[in-house]
Amino acid sequence: MPREITAFSNPLIKRARALRDKKHRRSEGLFLAEGLRILTEAQEAGHLPVQIFFADDGSPHPRTESLVAATEAAGGEAIVTTRAILSKLSGKDNPQAVVGVYRELPTALEALDRTVAPIWLVAQALRDPGNLGTMLRTGDAVGAGGLILIDDCADPFSVEAVRASMGAIFTESLAMARWEDFLAWLKGGDGQLIGTSLDTELDYQAPDYAAPAFILTGNESAGLPPDYAAACDLLVKIPMRGKADSLNAAVSTAVMAYEVLNQFRR
Amino acid sequence: MPREITAFSNPLIKRARALRDKKHRRSEGLFLAEGLRILTEAQEAGHLPVQIFFADDGSPHPRTESLVAATEAAGGEAIVTTRAILSKLSGKDNPQAVVGVYRELPTALEALDRTVAPIWLVAQALRDPGNLGTMLRTGDAVGAGGLILIDDCADPFSVEAVRASMGAIFTESLAMARWEDFLAWLKGGDGQLIGTSLDTELDYQAPDYAAPAFILTGNESAGLPPDYAAACDLLVKIPMRGKADSLNAAVSTAVMAYEVLNQFRR
Repeated sequence: MPREITAFSNPLIKRARALRDKKHRRSEGLFLAEGLRILTEAQEAGHLPVQIFFADDGSPHPRTESLVAATEAAGGEAIVTTRAILSKLSGKDNPQAVVGVYRELPTALEALDRTVAPIWLVAQALRDPGNLGTMLRTGDAVGAGGLILIDDCADPFSVEAVRASMGAIFTESLAMARWEDFLAWLKGGDGQLIGTSLDTELDYQAPDYAAPAFILTGNESAGLPPDYAAACDLLVKIPMRGKADSLNAAVSTAVMAYEVLNQFRR
Repeated sequence: MPREITAFSNPLIKRARALRDKKHRRSEGLFLAEGLRILTEAQEAGHLPVQIFFADDGSPHPRTESLVAATEAAGGEAIVTTRAILSKLSGKDNPQAVVGVYRELPTALEALDRTVAPIWLVAQALRDPGNLGTMLRTGDAVGAGGLILIDDCADPFSVEAVRASMGAIFTESLAMARWEDFLAWLKGGDGQLIGTSLDTELDYQAPDYAAPAFILTGNESAGLPPDYAAACDLLVKIPMRGKADSLNAAVSTAVMAYEVLNQFRR
């Protein structure tokens, strides 16, 4: 039976609310995901929340009821609450009707099996959690195995990243690694490292890409550091016909990833 | 000579700050843009601010000095101020060192000349200002003529949209129109209307696109309304290999736009 909580001061609400901060996510090993669509993706990928908060709107969505039942059956806790409290948890004026607290997912590079997918995404010093989540979502769409985060990136378990991933946080593998460790791991098997750069004349449609293709995107402002670019097997350039010299990082990743997918599906 | 303002309560600061709200942008016909990179793009595109605010950090960037001089020469006002006030204007803890107030740009559909570019972007009921700005940035990159906003979209002159556009707000044409008016305008000349949809089997790489190509992207959650999709000359599908059924709207637009550009540059 779901428990009812309507007080902001309830310790359970405060503890869930605290997961909006990275410090608390790390110390608790938990993160927040919102919305029926994302929670359903999570369930289909085999992930149930340890706690599920939902609004008592009279007639909950059948999928909410099924999520609540599955959460309780798996030993999780269901809490029926108010829209105002859900708004507090999600940080949005118009909150989703359901918010889940999940165990953080594994991020060890060694756990990745590069043979399961022909495309992998790699991001270096990516600062925007929305871009990070969008890359996960694109990774899912192109059938990538996952996203490898190099150096100091935004937190993939932040509310913004999880929201932008539209559930792909649960379906794509994640890894975090230092550059040297990533390079060592990469050289331990097959894999083509493909970077995008403005300092090359090689058009991104010119090479024949080989699986597993690792598509490397640099920091939003600075792009790839020169020594990182030098370590790539291929350095390619996406054509730019305008005044500016770069694309949004998540857009650039998607344009590259679809080129590689298009070659592989021919 | 720049005027110095260090008080939050100064009416000029309050008036600039108010431009973060759509209501005030509309009534004043002005909007905010931040950062040396974006203000320089604006200048190169022939747009100078009516007011420029910059931090007195001892040694301003030479390009800031040149922007300030150009603004004053054109009859605009230069205000040297504090980082705290710039932070208030930009809404960011770590504000850019320079913020400009610009006159809103024209958005009449009739002013667009479709013959100047082979690609045009069209967005319907786009709600996220970040997506909108990212589309402008992508439009610049693919050599699109501009972005046409259909129905009730996010405001292209919001701080978030301008920031995400990375200056493309000043280099891409903009138009806002109701769907019926857009269709009537479109039929008044050449133009292929290309929509993306899940309800078609036509792969997005299959058709031969023709210039001017109008790439239509629907609302982030709902996609294109069925009657809008039915009005397209071509309805195509971007392959989706994962669990989810859609891409981020700005990503989807970019993947389509690069396919059209790639065909045109062959």
